Amino acid sequence: MPFPFSAIVGQDEMKRALLISAVDPRIGGVMVFGDRGTGKSTAARALSALLPPMLAIAGCRYNCAPEEAHRCPDKCSETKGAKAAKVPVPFVDLPLGATEDRVLGALDLERALGRGEKAFEPGLLARAHRGYLYIDEINLLEDHLVDLLLDVAASGENLVEREGLSVRHPARFVLIGSGNPEEGELRPQLLDRFGLSVEVKTPQDIEQRIEIMRRCDALERDGANFMATWADADAKIVRRLAKGKKALPNVAMPEATLTDAATLCMAVGADGLRGELTLMRAARAYAALEGAKSAERKHLRAVAPMALRHRLRRDVLDETGSTVRIDRALTELFG
Amino acid sequence: MPFPFSAIVGQDEMKRALLISAVDPRIGGVMVFGDRGTGKSTAARALSALLPPMLAIAGCRYNCAPEEAHRCPDKCSETKGAKAAKVPVPFVDLPLGATEDRVLGALDLERALGRGEKAFEPGLLARAHRGYLYIDEINLLEDHLVDLLLDVAASGENLVEREGLSVRHPARFVLIGSGNPEEGELRPQLLDRFGLSVEVKTPQDIEQRIEIMRRCDALERDGANFMATWADADAKIVRRLAKGKKALPNVAMPEATLTDAATLCMAVGADGLRGELTLMRAARAYAALEGAKSAERKHLRAVAPMALRHRLRRDVLDETGSTVRIDRALTELFG
Amino acid sequence: MPFPFSAIVGQDEMKRALLISAVDPRIGGVMVFGDRGTGKSTAARALSALLPPMLAIAGCRYNCAPEEAHRCPDKCSETKGAKAAKVPVPFVDLPLGATEDRVLGALDLERALGRGEKAFEPGLLARAHRGYLYIDEINLLEDHLVDLLLDVAASGENLVEREGLSVRHPARFVLIGSGNPEEGELRPQLLDRFGLSVEVKTPQDIEQRIEIMRRCDALERDGANFMATWADADAKIVRRLAKGKKALPNVAMPEATLTDAATLCMAVGADGLRGELTLMRAARAYAALEGAKSAERKHLRAVAPMALRHRLRRDVLDETGSTVRIDRALTELFG
Amino acid sequence: MPFPFSAIVGQDEMKRALLISAVDPRIGGVMVFGDRGTGKSTAARALSALLPPMLAIAGCRYNCAPEEAHRCPDKCSETKGAKAAKVPVPFVDLPLGATEDRVLGALDLERALGRGEKAFEPGLLARAHRGYLYIDEINLLEDHLVDLLLDVAASGENLVEREGLSVRHPARFVLIGSGNPEEGELRPQLLDRFGLSVEVKTPQDIEQRIEIMRRCDALERDGANFMATWADADAKIVRRLAKGKKALPNVAMPEATLTDAATLCMAVGADGLRGELTLMRAARAYAALEGAKSAERKHLRAVAPMALRHRLRRDVLDETGSTVRIDRALTELFG
Amino acid sequence: MPFPFSAIVGQDEMKRALLISAVDPRIGGVMVFGDRGTGKSTAARALSALLPPMLAIAGCRYNCAPEEAHRCPDKCSETKGAKAAKVPVPFVDLPLGATEDRVLGALDLERALGRGEKAFEPGLLARAHRGYLYIDEINLLEDHLVDLLLDVAASGENLVEREGLSVRHPARFVLIGSGNPEEGELRPQLLDRFGLSVEVKTPQDIEQRIEIMRRCDALERDGANFMATWADADAKIVRRLAKGKKALPNVAMPEATLTDAATLCMAVGADGLRGELTLMRAARAYAALEGAKSAERKHLRAVAPMALRHRLRRDVLDETGSTVRIDRALTELFG
Amino acid sequence: MPFPFSAIVGQDEMKRALLISAVDPRIGGVMVFGDRGTGKSTAARALSALLPPMLAIAGCRYNCAPEEAHRCPDKCSETKGAKAAKVPVPFVDLPLGATEDRVLGALDLERALGRGEKAFEPGLLARAHRGYLYIDEINLLEDHLVDLLLDVAASGENLVEREGLSVRHPARFVLIGSGNPEEGELRPQLLDRFGLSVEVKTPQDIEQRIEIMRRCDALERDGANFMATWADADAKIVRRLAKGKKALPNVAMPEATLTDAATLCMAVGADGLRGELTLMRAARAYAALEGAKSAERKHLRAVAPMALRHRLRRDVLDETGSTVRIDRALTELFG
Repeated sequence: MPFPFSAIVGQDEMKRALLISAVDPRIGGVMVFGDRGTGKSTAARALSALLPPMLAIAGCRYNCAPEEAHRCPDKCSETKGAKAAKVPVPFVDLPLGATEDRVLGALDLERALGRGEKAFEPGLLARAHRGYLYIDEINLLEDHLVDLLLDVAASGENLVEREGLSVRHPARFVLIGSGNPEEGELRPQLLDRFGLSVEVKTPQDIEQRIEIMRRCDALERDGANFMATWADADAKIVRRLAKGKKALPNVAMPEATLTDAATLCMAVGADGLRGELTLMRAARAYAALEGAKSAERKHLRAVAPMALRHRLRRDVLDETGSTVRIDRALTELFG
Repeated sequence: MPFPFSAIVGQDEMKRALLISAVDPRIGGVMVFGDRGTGKSTAARALSALLPPMLAIAGCRYNCAPEEAHRCPDKCSETKGAKAAKVPVPFVDLPLGATEDRVLGALDLERALGRGEKAFEPGLLARAHRGYLYIDEINLLEDHLVDLLLDVAASGENLVEREGLSVRHPARFVLIGSGNPEEGELRPQLLDRFGLSVEVKTPQDIEQRIEIMRRCDALERDGANFMATWADADAKIVRRLAKGKKALPNVAMPEATLTDAATLCMAVGADGLRGELTLMRAARAYAALEGAKSAERKHLRAVAPMALRHRLRRDVLDETGSTVRIDRALTELFG
Repeated sequence: MPFPFSAIVGQDEMKRALLISAVDPRIGGVMVFGDRGTGKSTAARALSALLPPMLAIAGCRYNCAPEEAHRCPDKCSETKGAKAAKVPVPFVDLPLGATEDRVLGALDLERALGRGEKAFEPGLLARAHRGYLYIDEINLLEDHLVDLLLDVAASGENLVEREGLSVRHPARFVLIGSGNPEEGELRPQLLDRFGLSVEVKTPQDIEQRIEIMRRCDALERDGANFMATWADADAKIVRRLAKGKKALPNVAMPEATLTDAATLCMAVGADGLRGELTLMRAARAYAALEGAKSAERKHLRAVAPMALRHRLRRDVLDETGSTVRIDRALTELFG
Repeated sequence: MPFPFSAIVGQDEMKRALLISAVDPRIGGVMVFGDRGTGKSTAARALSALLPPMLAIAGCRYNCAPEEAHRCPDKCSETKGAKAAKVPVPFVDLPLGATEDRVLGALDLERALGRGEKAFEPGLLARAHRGYLYIDEINLLEDHLVDLLLDVAASGENLVEREGLSVRHPARFVLIGSGNPEEGELRPQLLDRFGLSVEVKTPQDIEQRIEIMRRCDALERDGANFMATWADADAKIVRRLAKGKKALPNVAMPEATLTDAATLCMAVGADGLRGELTLMRAARAYAALEGAKSAERKHLRAVAPMALRHRLRRDVLDETGSTVRIDRALTELFG
Repeated sequence: MPFPFSAIVGQDEMKRALLISAVDPRIGGVMVFGDRGTGKSTAARALSALLPPMLAIAGCRYNCAPEEAHRCPDKCSETKGAKAAKVPVPFVDLPLGATEDRVLGALDLERALGRGEKAFEPGLLARAHRGYLYIDEINLLEDHLVDLLLDVAASGENLVEREGLSVRHPARFVLIGSGNPEEGELRPQLLDRFGLSVEVKTPQDIEQRIEIMRRCDALERDGANFMATWADADAKIVRRLAKGKKALPNVAMPEATLTDAATLCMAVGADGLRGELTLMRAARAYAALEGAKSAERKHLRAVAPMALRHRLRRDVLDETGSTVRIDRALTELFG
Repeated sequence: MPFPFSAIVGQDEMKRALLISAVDPRIGGVMVFGDRGTGKSTAARALSALLPPMLAIAGCRYNCAPEEAHRCPDKCSETKGAKAAKVPVPFVDLPLGATEDRVLGALDLERALGRGEKAFEPGLLARAHRGYLYIDEINLLEDHLVDLLLDVAASGENLVEREGLSVRHPARFVLIGSGNPEEGELRPQLLDRFGLSVEVKTPQDIEQRIEIMRRCDALERDGANFMATWADADAKIVRRLAKGKKALPNVAMPEATLTDAATLCMAVGADGLRGELTLMRAARAYAALEGAKSAERKHLRAVAPMALRHRLRRDVLDETGSTVRIDRALTELFG
């Protein structure tokens, strides 16, 4: 029984990043920096549970939406009696030690040995299609696997070239990685490919901490009742998300905002162009979520830390943290 | 022939931690720090032998309780002639060098090769279900295997994604790890996931040491007689445990105790929120074991060292050990 | 939907190198040095999409041109009903973690196990034949695989000696590698075998950066319209390429230009003879692209940095970069 | 042809330790420290050859004694025509490079491949049952294999959890390890699990060395004659051993001796409780071997070095060797 | 289309060494030290192309000459319709990453799996028989593989002891290794087993470099014409080689030359006796190539650097290179 | 065609050691220290070629002598038509990279896969039975393989415990190892297990070096003639060996010689007892070879360096080499 999204105490930036990536998944995954035991996986899991069920071809191993079923490697829509059904938005928690085979998909050994056929057995990427892929302690994963996951998350497509197989299937999901920077960092190249990043910390407010215990206690004693208490708040978020997704294509992107984005990226010294492109997209999505017609400086401002924090060069003359440097630049540039 | 639990000389904190985790297994495993040859495995083994047999579907490879048998991967309750029987509470001692396959379960090779079927062969986690999983020298195990075991212990469920298999079965057990910190420590992330921790030491009291020799000698000379001598004391512990388990859901958790828990955790500087959540649960279980109606400061106090000892940050300005720091904080805060 | 080649903002040297290697693929691959997120893969992909479709035996696994089909390992032209068809110029993006088997081709396991036949399953090199092979972060690839790829790119032929197979098939493609020198360099031996090299950088001009965001935004909002806007510019490039390829064999190579090439290579201190041979070929191809009848000093000059940059010895007394040293030598020698 | 036990020149402590462990195998294995070429394996091999043949079910792969045959994994006593026969006491010399499979036992591949059955093929542990397992250069073995062997030696039972097999068979043997401490030591944890330890050195007495050459020469020239010469001495040892084994259960263990044991262990600083438990058992066995009714201080004294030598903590202020420290403590405490 | 041997500009020592080893292959392989891009492989390849075709049993997998066909593992001469045919002298370029299996030959898996027969599939050594085996960057190969290759090259026979196979077949070839000493050296033991060694360098003469460009240009523009231009020069070399081979057995080896050889080797400090034995053989072969009746001091002198260069001990008091030290010794000893 | 043993120039100690080990193979193997290219393998190979053919059951894979054929794992003497035949004394040159399987023997895969039988395929140890096993660069072999080989050489029996096989066959051979101490030494434990050791060096006498060239030249020009020239000298050695073997059991071993042996070993500080036991045996064999009735001090003296050289402890106060220290001790003790 997942914790209700709206019952999560604090952690506002993380919740905002998750909602923005739900409005426009093209922004790319969310990297969550922070200590263990701060509810990172709880929030991601709660969001996926909150989302309304989606329409998929029943029994399809690729979670095909009816409109894309003609491209299914299993030709799921041509199966006798195929029809669409409502299924929960998938939330896949990458198990530690999952092999590349199991993640990407691989030769189906049962059929290979039993019937001599070279068939494809889809992996966790197929199962995560149209949902969430959560990777705890992503910094413990091998770089090349992280790279593969980011490639697929970016292209929305999983292309498997292994063991004489060559399969291509859609795999659009929001990648959520979490990790504690004290235990080893991801290479800058990999970090740069996450759309957004947030920092979560152990709350230092005693009231907040007691409130968390209270809510856990309530959930443990009478879960059904606890869920009912928060159902309205959760429903409100669902409606806000739906409105935001619908509004997104019509949110204007004024030249002034583009100039702000480029100015800010040059000021903080982000390498490459992913910084400003992400900033543009995240500002648009946030504006949509807020019900605005146009992405303005205030939206850009609200998303700048999460869009740029993980893209800053280390500056040997300025040892202050990334968040502080972005905030300072925002103040200097935009007052 | 296991040593009677009540005949164990000294080692009070360890015995208390084992009893608390028997009352509320959700508290999580017990990590035992200490030298070899101090009876760590003896105590854990003794407790499991003490527990009354449990009801399970006879012959089920997953130790299914009758009420959960409908979720058994083998559909054990549907087998012809299936009926429940009393079986001993399992105590599984993870053999050194046990492979991930054997721990988690794996493809049943015999059936795969012989009949071309892809069937699942459950592993040690299935065998430990509803009992104890003991891991000696857990610090010598590979981190990822420890992590897997802690994941399963925490979720109560074993989800296997390997070799094209995807099996999910209940695996609720108390994980007991032991290790000597002088031989390499577990990563803080892994330690943090153990519910409780205790320290055992070679007794320094000569009378106690002679008494231990005397009892070993008695057991070796006439085991049956020795067991009989301690049967009453053991039975008393069984009754106390049964009462505690029954009382647990009704033990109150006053606001003052929650405040105490949060205050203490902030004072000693535990990262994340697992510290106070464990403290809350362990205090409740201890109160139940002691026959109290409500978890009070004295219960919290009694369990604070075992709930927090392994969660403290190293403080470079204060080199005193974790136990000393917790005791000092308890005295400063609560007098 | 690839970005139109002509819509790429800036990056002139890279675009020139790609066009030169399209005019004369014998010059060898192109190594692209630069930061992530600067559109390296975009340009290469755009060029391949720009090229007119090529004639190949339909369904041939080796992309055989009709005139070479008699040498096809599959004897594709002898298959019943074989006929030539227009297919897009292949662009193969080497997936990270692709195995040597999958790159070179390997024993076809399905046939080996099913029918006991030792047949060859062609790999990515066969698929890239007559097109492009793009390798991102080539410096992360194992040296021996890079070496294999360069061998094949140089000889235009893939010779597989593995698992008792001995297959030889044409594999002519332009190898494009990209990498960030900050993350570890290729060995000089490997660099030397790339024909050309270019450097791309994050643009530092704010107007250029805003223009890039504008074009991405336009593509994302209405891709079809965006493509149409740039169709004419792209078509002009196609015509220029076609003329250049046709003119190439007739471009004269005056003694003076040869002397310039040797003089320059000795001045900058390039090891071996690949420097001047590449310089000669690149000047000729560039002259052809520019519509000149003869390769003159101005053509040599235009291609010298890309032909020599990656072939300079480190000079401990002169810490200036390779590009600067080549430019300085050009000025000193040729004014 | 083994060397007669009684013809071994010198090496008294080693011979005594071997005889004590033959009287009470529960004391645990014997670790022999010393240089190569000092007859370590000769003595162990000689002892096993000396022992009278034992009764076992003929042909049983587990050396089952008739009284334990009902627990045999092969159900050897139920085989048609099964009967007991006299077989030599096994002496197994662990070959270097023996795999874990071969030591523990493993899936019988012949039956698995040929008949699709998952049968168990017992390993060297089964063969060593009721005899000796000798491991030369045990410090070169992998720690986890040593640990496995010590676990089995301690529990008297081999539990195999591999490849889907789960077999349990008795494996009671005296483990004898030898090693040269100059070539790397065993971890203290492993050493602690050996019951006894002895040190052997190259004899420094020239007469002894000449005598050894003389006896080797005699054996090489006329082995039969040499064996006959020593038969009586060997027979006397056999009778002494038999008497000791019979007397063992009746040897008294006075409180004073227990107090001596605890006092000594605390004085020399042995970790854990294995030190005094071993001391108690070894003193009892030695008393039995000597024909005494009660284990007295003199017996304790005689076995203290071999029971404690390998269990001492390094004391940085006292660099003297373990043997010296034990002797000094014995003198200080008991005069 | 290989470059004509006689059209190679410069590189005289390398060409001489190749011709000497063609006259007497028993001298052993040629190690070529030098930078990439200096035409090392070109010269070796050119020589093999130059040689007249040889007579072999048609289709034999071991290139058996008719006179040795009775020893062929395939008994090629007994195959129905077997007859000799002219085939080109083989030139095998060891592909990077070639496995030991593929080099030596291995179990033929196709027949093993399909027909249950244990047949041998010959490897690259069989294919190189009677020709050349070229290994680029031999210093990147694993030592044990280099050792194997040198063993076979020295004995003229490949003996395979693997996977239960035991096959022996003739494998006489000239081993040509190339490597850049700046990238790691071969162990002295391996170097010592090469018969000859040469050094090639990037030419520092501008006219020579322009000439090389001119010839490459000519070959690229009209290969057929270019080949024709050099045909006569190549034919002359063929005749010279044939004469040399025929004269070799009759070239006298005067005592004075042997004394010179021993004196020189002792003077330069070559370990072992391979130095003077090689010097003797190379002088004889060179005399034969030059049409002399007897191996004189001048022949010895001409081959001394290539026979000894790679066999000198490092002399810490004399940091001058090997070639310089040999030249100096030649001058001091022979004026 | 092996070089005649008597034609080997110099290397007297090595030749003597080989003859001694031929007279009494129980002395153990010979370790040859020295540079490459000094004819080490030549001498060993020459000796084996010299020995008269031996009688063996024809076709037996274990080289069984008729008198031991009843213990053959193949029961070779029971095969239909089995009879004894003369076969050359085997000389096995351990190929670099030979696997443990191939050395020891292993499961016969052909029969295992084809007929489902678990049969044993003997390895190189079986082939070397009753002859020589030569290992070049033994210091490059893995320690555990050297250890295995020494175990077998010492026990004369190969016991294979692998893959469910348990085979035992005679494997008596003289192990000859060679190595250059500059390239890494064997562990003292392994060295100690070689019976004898010799040092070979590049001859520093110019006449000797010229003579070697002369003989090589003669062999290369007319091998048959060269062999004939040395046939008599070789035959004389054969007779001397035969006489020595016959006389060996009757050579007396006076007490004085034993005392000398022990005195010498203590003086030079050899660990363990292998030193004097080898000295005793080598002196006896050398006396037999020399036709003496008794092993005297002069025989001991002649073999002392080869029996003890590799067994000396490093003495930090005495940096002189082992050979010098033994010679000095001999002079001091025996004048």
